[in-house]
Amino acid sequence: MTIETIQNGHVTMPKGFLAGAVSAGIKTRAGALDLCLLYSERECTAAGMFTQNLVKGAPVVLTAQNVSDGKLRAIVANSGNSNSLNGPGGMEDARQMVAMAASTLGLNNQDVAVCSTGITGVRMPMAKVRTHLPTVSISAEGGHDLAEAIMTTDTRPKQIAVSVSTANGSYSVAGCSKGSGMIHPNMATMFTFVTTDAVVELECLRGLQREVAGKTLNMISVDGDTSCSDTFLVLANGAAGLPRIESGTPEAQEFQEALLTVCTHLARELARDGEGARHLIEVAVTGATTLEGARAVARTVSTSPLVKTAVAGYDPNWGRILVAAGRAGAPLEEAKVSMSLQGELIFQRGLALPFDEPAMSKKLESEEVKIEIDLGLGEASATAWGCDLTTDYVHINADYRT
Amino acid sequence: MTIETIQNGHVTMPKGFLAGAVSAGIKTRAGALDLCLLYSERECTAAGMFTQNLVKGAPVVLTAQNVSDGKLRAIVANSGNSNSLNGPGGMEDARQMVAMAASTLGLNNQDVAVCSTGITGVRMPMAKVRTHLPTVSISAEGGHDLAEAIMTTDTRPKQIAVSVSTANGSYSVAGCSKGSGMIHPNMATMFTFVTTDAVVELECLRGLQREVAGKTLNMISVDGDTSCSDTFLVLANGAAGLPRIESGTPEAQEFQEALLTVCTHLARELARDGEGARHLIEVAVTGATTLEGARAVARTVSTSPLVKTAVAGYDPNWGRILVAAGRAGAPLEEAKVSMSLQGELIFQRGLALPFDEPAMSKKLESEEVKIEIDLGLGEASATAWGCDLTTDYVHINADYRT
Repeated sequence: MTIETIQNGHVTMPKGFLAGAVSAGIKTRAGALDLCLLYSERECTAAGMFTQNLVKGAPVVLTAQNVSDGKLRAIVANSGNSNSLNGPGGMEDARQMVAMAASTLGLNNQDVAVCSTGITGVRMPMAKVRTHLPTVSISAEGGHDLAEAIMTTDTRPKQIAVSVSTANGSYSVAGCSKGSGMIHPNMATMFTFVTTDAVVELECLRGLQREVAGKTLNMISVDGDTSCSDTFLVLANGAAGLPRIESGTPEAQEFQEALLTVCTHLARELARDGEGARHLIEVAVTGATTLEGARAVARTVSTSPLVKTAVAGYDPNWGRILVAAGRAGAPLEEAKVSMSLQGELIFQRGLALPFDEPAMSKKLESEEVKIEIDLGLGEASATAWGCDLTTDYVHINADYRT
Repeated sequence: MTIETIQNGHVTMPKGFLAGAVSAGIKTRAGALDLCLLYSERECTAAGMFTQNLVKGAPVVLTAQNVSDGKLRAIVANSGNSNSLNGPGGMEDARQMVAMAASTLGLNNQDVAVCSTGITGVRMPMAKVRTHLPTVSISAEGGHDLAEAIMTTDTRPKQIAVSVSTANGSYSVAGCSKGSGMIHPNMATMFTFVTTDAVVELECLRGLQREVAGKTLNMISVDGDTSCSDTFLVLANGAAGLPRIESGTPEAQEFQEALLTVCTHLARELARDGEGARHLIEVAVTGATTLEGARAVARTVSTSPLVKTAVAGYDPNWGRILVAAGRAGAPLEEAKVSMSLQGELIFQRGLALPFDEPAMSKKLESEEVKIEIDLGLGEASATAWGCDLTTDYVHINADYRT
């Protein structure tokens, strides 16, 4: 099997998927794409994962219901308004968006997901949705527009497609995401939509989605806040015409690798484009006693405001990294810990090693900062991604609403 | 009983306590006080609480040992260097600091606590400590200098003294604290030292310390990071000459109220002086099903970067408050939640109430911002304190070390 990344990949590259977007004026910026449709020409097996926040946007509640039978044919999504904290009226609006999309596309309401992101607590401008949704023109080239139409404070679209060549033939897996604050943890992005023209048995798809999310989208953080809108949907339509992928087979293993490639790329891009970020921070933890412990340490370090500000200042303040690791709630013995920064061992089994601080500070100017922590206690490992905390994060979030 | 705050109060106001500080050059700023002693002329009952971080500074480990018998006579403290992450050499330095202070004051090593705060992972400049510690001159006026000598990025000392008049006579309780980043949670300050000339039975003192810390020092946060140096010590020397306070008596209740007054003041001042802060944020939660749930919601909201940046921008973005509440891990039903901002009800049982945004934004310019959340589910309540997140926080922490 080979997995190859397709140049300029997007979610309508897998066969049988169409998409399109318009500017409906939901975002304040004139002409910005903000309302879009993703459509499959064939029935899909579909799996969803959602925010664990107890405050859930109406679209999340409705989409979770609609995907519960393991089938979807379309997603209607918008940016600019998250349609959350709007009471029963918000749920009515979400239902109407689903009904309009279903009617436009000739589908049953139950087969349509709705995803909204943006400001909370303000009713969706339904007149604009009503006017513009029927004008969305979908095509096999529409993936790029869709990726752009779901952006909020993102500075760029995040998307990827890979071609998977197997003994049985070839299929594609593609995905797009939007971030870029509030992506933490346990549904670590606001939206990720994955499409594939493979055909995957439902329980297999659900299991692989959970497995891969645990290593990718649930391991990124921008600011530790958790959105009420986070949605991760996978749609598999089988248009490639290959045999159905079943749990526990080599084919399922291959599909998992492809899904992992797509979601790792999207997770890293989400962290890299965190609000105000200038650095992607990768925290790789080894030697933990349990997987949960490894993940907790990696996530806690990647989320620590003191680590994030140190990276913003090119400051090799390794003490902050270890202190953050120490509060993660996982077993840790200072005398057994080793740590590398940008590939250079600077702390070895409890003792600081001398290093050239100006040279290390220079290395921290790199766009990617890698922190490796060996807890020296066991065999479990995990990687998390975050970004630095800059004054721009504060500006973006102090001025977002008003 | 009456509790009266004493003008310009400090920790050597209770009878029999002396303190003093010098500039030893541990801090980089020339002439800054950075090495100090607190001394009791009489034996004290003493209780300690410490950071729950698994990475603990050597001074924390040693002080925890020394207070474990319930007795202390002195504290030697310094700012500028936390003597943490220094391996066995750091523990040797901490022992030497204790031995020098004990020798200077004519005490046993076991009766001296050592508290260090500042940079991590750099050995304590022991030559400076050796030269300057014997020159510290202690007096009953030294409390102010001590409060100043423990400051790091604090912009001002935090201290208070109260006079307690009871049926049995009068005594005093005083305290000082230093913050001002990394004060979260479960030992929510780097240092708090409380002195009293009441005499309190050891188990009673320990119980009341825990009770009061749970309502005050453990309910504040600046950035969600937890220091490896956090230390809360209470010394009771009995110099007021009143009968011993025992658990479960009205006198214990009175003492608890005095301790609560002192620690509430210090907690609020710590949050108010958070790094870069311009607002104290008070989050009062009612209607929770459990005390733990109420505390979790109050703390999560007060720690949320999105809430903190909204306050920095005078932005009445109440959606962020509710979304933060929803991820606290406590039971919450959106349709039962009500919320007030600066005393004005803006969200009532799941529905947003219209309010004058520019007027509310104006109200948020106040130095104190009050958020009240009624979960509408039960009887438990809790209050947490935090501060806004400004570009100055980023500047302070991106430039602190290098």
